[in-house]
Amino acid sequence: MGGIMVVLIQSKDRIGLVADISRIMAAARLNIVSLREHVDKVENRFYIRIETENEADPSALEQEIRKVLPADALIAINPRPEKKIVVMVTKEYHCLADILVRHQFKTLGATVQCVIGNYPVLQNICERFGVPFHLVNHEGIEKETFEENILQHIDACQPDYIVLAKFMRILSPAFVARYPMRIINIHHSFLPAFAGAHPYRQAFERGVKLIGATSHFVTNELDEGPIIAQQVIPVNHSYSAGDMMKAGQEIETSVLAKALRLVLTDRVFMYRNKTVVFE
Amino acid sequence: MGGIMVVLIQSKDRIGLVADISRIMAAARLNIVSLREHVDKVENRFYIRIETENEADPSALEQEIRKVLPADALIAINPRPEKKIVVMVTKEYHCLADILVRHQFKTLGATVQCVIGNYPVLQNICERFGVPFHLVNHEGIEKETFEENILQHIDACQPDYIVLAKFMRILSPAFVARYPMRIINIHHSFLPAFAGAHPYRQAFERGVKLIGATSHFVTNELDEGPIIAQQVIPVNHSYSAGDMMKAGQEIETSVLAKALRLVLTDRVFMYRNKTVVFE
Amino acid sequence: MGGIMVVLIQSKDRIGLVADISRIMAAARLNIVSLREHVDKVENRFYIRIETENEADPSALEQEIRKVLPADALIAINPRPEKKIVVMVTKEYHCLADILVRHQFKTLGATVQCVIGNYPVLQNICERFGVPFHLVNHEGIEKETFEENILQHIDACQPDYIVLAKFMRILSPAFVARYPMRIINIHHSFLPAFAGAHPYRQAFERGVKLIGATSHFVTNELDEGPIIAQQVIPVNHSYSAGDMMKAGQEIETSVLAKALRLVLTDRVFMYRNKTVVFE
Amino acid sequence: MGGIMVVLIQSKDRIGLVADISRIMAAARLNIVSLREHVDKVENRFYIRIETENEADPSALEQEIRKVLPADALIAINPRPEKKIVVMVTKEYHCLADILVRHQFKTLGATVQCVIGNYPVLQNICERFGVPFHLVNHEGIEKETFEENILQHIDACQPDYIVLAKFMRILSPAFVARYPMRIINIHHSFLPAFAGAHPYRQAFERGVKLIGATSHFVTNELDEGPIIAQQVIPVNHSYSAGDMMKAGQEIETSVLAKALRLVLTDRVFMYRNKTVVFE
Repeated sequence: MGGIMVVLIQSKDRIGLVADISRIMAAARLNIVSLREHVDKVENRFYIRIETENEADPSALEQEIRKVLPADALIAINPRPEKKIVVMVTKEYHCLADILVRHQFKTLGATVQCVIGNYPVLQNICERFGVPFHLVNHEGIEKETFEENILQHIDACQPDYIVLAKFMRILSPAFVARYPMRIINIHHSFLPAFAGAHPYRQAFERGVKLIGATSHFVTNELDEGPIIAQQVIPVNHSYSAGDMMKAGQEIETSVLAKALRLVLTDRVFMYRNKTVVFE
Repeated sequence: MGGIMVVLIQSKDRIGLVADISRIMAAARLNIVSLREHVDKVENRFYIRIETENEADPSALEQEIRKVLPADALIAINPRPEKKIVVMVTKEYHCLADILVRHQFKTLGATVQCVIGNYPVLQNICERFGVPFHLVNHEGIEKETFEENILQHIDACQPDYIVLAKFMRILSPAFVARYPMRIINIHHSFLPAFAGAHPYRQAFERGVKLIGATSHFVTNELDEGPIIAQQVIPVNHSYSAGDMMKAGQEIETSVLAKALRLVLTDRVFMYRNKTVVFE
Repeated sequence: MGGIMVVLIQSKDRIGLVADISRIMAAARLNIVSLREHVDKVENRFYIRIETENEADPSALEQEIRKVLPADALIAINPRPEKKIVVMVTKEYHCLADILVRHQFKTLGATVQCVIGNYPVLQNICERFGVPFHLVNHEGIEKETFEENILQHIDACQPDYIVLAKFMRILSPAFVARYPMRIINIHHSFLPAFAGAHPYRQAFERGVKLIGATSHFVTNELDEGPIIAQQVIPVNHSYSAGDMMKAGQEIETSVLAKALRLVLTDRVFMYRNKTVVFE
Repeated sequence: MGGIMVVLIQSKDRIGLVADISRIMAAARLNIVSLREHVDKVENRFYIRIETENEADPSALEQEIRKVLPADALIAINPRPEKKIVVMVTKEYHCLADILVRHQFKTLGATVQCVIGNYPVLQNICERFGVPFHLVNHEGIEKETFEENILQHIDACQPDYIVLAKFMRILSPAFVARYPMRIINIHHSFLPAFAGAHPYRQAFERGVKLIGATSHFVTNELDEGPIIAQQVIPVNHSYSAGDMMKAGQEIETSVLAKALRLVLTDRVFMYRNKTVVFE
């Protein structure tokens, strides 16, 4: 924690990648204070995250490193430290309010550019924090038009990530394709249990003893995107479906906050339907 | 914890049940040191568990209490304090060994009458603890015969509960009907996620960040019986499916131990597909 | 959860208390849907919490119940359902903001009458939520005067509880005596570990693998009051003392929220230096 | 998990250590599949753990690596994969039985050479598993003699680690000096809370809502050695001190098992009074 530069790389694996990368960093007089490396043998894929104590020119460094890496390498050096996000919501306040509070006190690791809601109920809380709220109604219009209306607001903000903080409508493949692997959702169940609608109702009827929440990147498969973080809390026979929903909101807030912290501190890699998270 | 008598009752609900039951207990000079009551409004069902500091004649007490209860009432006063169990296993040792150790040191709350395995691999550990092991091979015979062979051993023991401690074959409805609501299983996933076969393989492929285990009563719906206890542990990208299985065995052991402790201390009620657990 | 009336009683124990109380409730045609009773044998003390499905006249009920109880009985029937609280803070925003958000969306179970701070830094967040903020500076004045200035604001609000949401000054016995057992604190350690100042510094130097937070009622013994709730989170060698503090703030927020939920839903009894919590 | 070679190094930090080490490994055609590196800036200390997919000659590799490291470097390549341990006990069975079961099924990552007890109560369980048990009585003899008697048994086994699995006597500095940083203890509290004797009694009297267990290396400061692992479980008002002890035994078993897994898979570094654990 607390290194000055962060270097993230994923690529095909081969012998000597750590040596080649670290040699370049040593030549630049960079001291590595934290390093995590993982090779996924099933995919033959190499992931590395490096924090250094001191600084060098990022673009020169990237140029040097790229020379020694496989052609498919993804390199990010010093990903924008203060990232920009757009938050999308429907009616529930809990995840949004948590994000707005952290934004306000500059502990989110991102600035909230704007909030987009398909109902007006959360406009007031955004105004209290001086964050623009855009109402984009989904009723009486084509889904395509609805999404175009949303995208106008998003594109204007050029966000690093779009956070679905209990946005309760399913986004089209076309929408997702515009921000691939940059849309983060919170789902109100311990996926893959209770995918789809009304997970708390399902959980109540099954009589489970734990309920959970899952934050994941959004792909075109509903509730099937790469999982970033999951947590559960105990429930029991005394909980109605409504009580489970209330209890679950606490864990939804907590899991989304954790997922955002991991993503915004550049600890999450994605490949196919999985993540590599260097907590 | 630590009351001398335990009274368990479930029945249809009506006004005055607590008053009627506690009046009879006060008349018997019983001091109630712990009481849990719950009414399930959806089912209109009343559950109560009472611990007393002192004793009275159980059968006289039951007779008195039964007079004031609805006809469908299930009453258990001082359920056999040292219960008898039979354990069924296949090849994995972890749950069985935990049970045998507790049995040996008299902290299980039950005596293990015998262990039944469809492979011989766990015979040795049973012998080390002086617990009879019966090998009942499933190969080359009809399922019906296989189960009859098992039931001969079970029936001879007259167990209170049958514990499936990683018994990897599905029991027939006829078998389950012989010991309704008295068969306890440990399933190696956080149900309803990853029901069925190879849950760790499924979990690995989905890239989940938690894996779990579920202990439940066995009914005729596979992996659908009333859940007694569930727990999870964190995993990450560095876990192969095999690593998940190994990590999961720790939680399977722990969840089954918890479920047995709850059941064997008379804290679990069942009704339809759910439990009421007064932890 | 969700009963209409709540009855809380503690008193010396004797045989027949449950019977006497429940008889009166049945006579009033009240249906008990949830009941928790506990007797502390060390203190010979009886605690009961009852939720009913329907209603009766509370003062008539209390009068009837009091007749059958020991003279020292504390009875609360339908404790004010929408309680009033005053929050005291110093400079850290996290617990306060969580309380203000829940207050705003009416999920706190209490209204925040005002916030009192000994620094002005949290005035802005209070104004955003339209909650009065009173700055009471402690510098250059006697502690007695400082506390009198605070008490003027508190007394004007007639709060049910005073919440110390990271208020970093020690209150005098005289102050505590004005609101006995009604002041709730959040301490940033897993008490009794790291009582006193700089718990995260202490935790860092000891190299612990978990850090915690404790919410407790305030008494005249510093960090010694009855504990309501505690939680921990894992840390490791990569955490500086500052990282531990940041991580700890998440758990402080969560523990204080839990303690308030328990207290504000009338689930907490106090006696001497302990609580009985019917979660 | 599952690399073929493991390389562990700690030393003073300087720029280029990762580069120098990984260059040597690449030259030996070793593919690094998992790497964790951490620099403790307070101590200016470098820690690295590397797993490789394939093998090279360990002593040649160590010789090459040593050339590029500071003189104080501690290097371990392929630490003995099947380690030897001696277990010391008093009367409680739970931690010992867990170790013996894992030993029996070859999942401990170590062989139990012998068990030494200062009471005979656990002799029987050792015999059941065919593990030698040595009774070394502490009564009526000098502590020095007592410890010499123990050390004779230990020395004969040449263990990698000595595990105090609820050994309830304090070892002298002379004893500890014979096996520095190789003695692992389980303490029945969440240290530093409730250090010393009767932690569950202390916990009961304080009314805590969580109880814990701590596994640590033994040094000459009682209960002050470097912490390897800690866990907690919830308790409440219904637990007597005895109930807390019983519940605590579950977590003691679990924490010691975790600490042993971490140590025996070569994931734990020690320096001064702290550990670095690459989980």
